[in-house]
Amino acid sequence: MTDNNCIFCKLASGEIPSYTVYEDDTFRAILDAAPAGEGHTLILPKSHYENLFELPEDVAADAMRLAKKIATLLRDRMHCDGVNILQNNGAAAGQTVMHYHLHVIPRTEGDGHLAPWTPVQRSPEEQEATIEKMR
Amino acid sequence: MTDNNCIFCKLASGEIPSYTVYEDDTFRAILDAAPAGEGHTLILPKSHYENLFELPEDVAADAMRLAKKIATLLRDRMHCDGVNILQNNGAAAGQTVMHYHLHVIPRTEGDGHLAPWTPVQRSPEEQEATIEKMR
Repeated sequence: MTDNNCIFCKLASGEIPSYTVYEDDTFRAILDAAPAGEGHTLILPKSHYENLFELPEDVAADAMRLAKKIATLLRDRMHCDGVNILQNNGAAAGQTVMHYHLHVIPRTEGDGHLAPWTPVQRSPEEQEATIEKMR
Repeated sequence: MTDNNCIFCKLASGEIPSYTVYEDDTFRAILDAAPAGEGHTLILPKSHYENLFELPEDVAADAMRLAKKIATLLRDRMHCDGVNILQNNGAAAGQTVMHYHLHVIPRTEGDGHLAPWTPVQRSPEEQEATIEKMR
């Protein structure tokens, strides 16, 4: 199912042209229009799922198979120094288009992107309490 | 295969104790020792693979299945506002321990973590040239 109001549905279907790196029945992988660096790719399922919570488990698994292929292309053909795999769920996590997408981001030594988070120090008692909640 | 000098091998095997969220034959998922927020989890394969390039495709796929489960736990039990899935390959991409690990990061509105990258403007001609290299 696609959503008529979703730009990523239109890109994934080909209704809006894109720079397509890869396509199969389930996915289209396209160059990001505002990339962190040359080759920054978005993996889009052709069906509309808002986020990882909605995405079927098998499609999530296949998205990561495809991410590995694209990361390898970036390493071998674009000669980047490193690669991030990033997928944001929810506005609070930096998701700006509400159609699941997986970023494959080529990195160059010292490019300054994706600064690490500020760690939140937690005591052993706090970690134990978290485990109790999550298990 | 494990690597005797790798701290994540020792954590994954249980030789070094950790706050374990989930465990099966292939993976151990543990609380990050310096989390971005409560519940920040690392998915570690028990075998030693340096990064996504080395990780077998089936293990990469299963890591994402597990990430979906843990993201759902974070949403439902920790009541976070969003979740990032992040996996860094190479020092240039922010990888600090050279044993593949997938971050599942709970996000809170306004926590300021993982600032977006600075976009690199590229012309249509440049995007076409990139596609030629990647396809």
